[in-house]
Amino acid sequence: MSGYVSDAVIRRLPAYYRHLRELENDGVTQISSQELGERMGLTPSQIRQDINTFGGFGRQGYGYQVHDLKEHIHKIMGLDRDHRMVIIGAGRIGQAIANYAGFAVQGFHTVALFDIDPVKIGQSTEALPIYPAEELLLRLADLQPDICVLALPKEAAQQTLDLLYQAGIRGIWNFAPVDLHFPRDMVVVNVHLSDSLQILSYQMNHQKE
Amino acid sequence: MSGYVSDAVIRRLPAYYRHLRELENDGVTQISSQELGERMGLTPSQIRQDINTFGGFGRQGYGYQVHDLKEHIHKIMGLDRDHRMVIIGAGRIGQAIANYAGFAVQGFHTVALFDIDPVKIGQSTEALPIYPAEELLLRLADLQPDICVLALPKEAAQQTLDLLYQAGIRGIWNFAPVDLHFPRDMVVVNVHLSDSLQILSYQMNHQKE
Repeated sequence: MSGYVSDAVIRRLPAYYRHLRELENDGVTQISSQELGERMGLTPSQIRQDINTFGGFGRQGYGYQVHDLKEHIHKIMGLDRDHRMVIIGAGRIGQAIANYAGFAVQGFHTVALFDIDPVKIGQSTEALPIYPAEELLLRLADLQPDICVLALPKEAAQQTLDLLYQAGIRGIWNFAPVDLHFPRDMVVVNVHLSDSLQILSYQMNHQKE
Repeated sequence: MSGYVSDAVIRRLPAYYRHLRELENDGVTQISSQELGERMGLTPSQIRQDINTFGGFGRQGYGYQVHDLKEHIHKIMGLDRDHRMVIIGAGRIGQAIANYAGFAVQGFHTVALFDIDPVKIGQSTEALPIYPAEELLLRLADLQPDICVLALPKEAAQQTLDLLYQAGIRGIWNFAPVDLHFPRDMVVVNVHLSDSLQILSYQMNHQKE
């Protein structure tokens, strides 16, 4: 994959992967841009354009090899290697993430949680340790995560990110409802649940007009 | 707000709202497109274009009135009215949503959960009832939700959506990792956590190049 890839294409990558995996499970070995487009709610020309961006798969009139394309996207997304995650904040969101088995299947392994609440510390959630937040820096060297999940109040998010950057962490999955500042060599992906709910509200509001 | 509004602008609306609320809390009454852009990581011209789409606020050289613009966006997003939510699936994600106080503050009130697990049914999470899934249709008439949250396994998501549509529900907040089919007069907003994690992985993978 070379050159500039638009945010829109990157956002669609996981959906391609999801659909191709389902197709493969259903025993489909080959698919046209027309069929894939109908399935994904995209036009055949969007499909062809996207897949060209990924690396020029498929030949005119022959469609795509489901398995090959799926494996290619898998690799593009870096899913061919394992990721170690540390979750900072062992509240309900943090614990829900820690306990979602689907992530481990995809190679994202949660290795520990951290919290400031003495009641939570020490308690293990599904055999995962919950360490005191003050031991974060100390333990990162051992835990060796490449992704840190921020599942803490927004007031603590920026200072925690800064600390993690100092410690060499370059991947942040942020659930705190705040836009964080971060250096260019760090990657932050947000899950802003309130934003998502507000977009739902917006669309319901404008549906009626 | 009239005419076509692009998905990209709709996706940015909650961020505008968030930043304007923070600015107001900080005592800022007026802001230029330059300053707002720096804060939000957008160019001043993007800011002006977006805000023109919302309804033509501000005058050249005068900047925007923080309070007025915030209220305007609040109304556009339909946040000036209350929403009643029912959560289907009382697992960790469902319960995390039920217990996040931030949603109620914004007018999104969870009124009940449903589950198929006899162990969960009857147990209340933060004073909210958990009803058996088989009573869903029966109870919707009383509960009067306008939004249903799908926090259940992907295998059950489509049939539940179909049922909810029949029952008159038009707003779905979907956490199941599947792309659902739905009629044109229904709104579905997805929170695909695995997709988000895969995008993080993609960006980390391509950061290094």
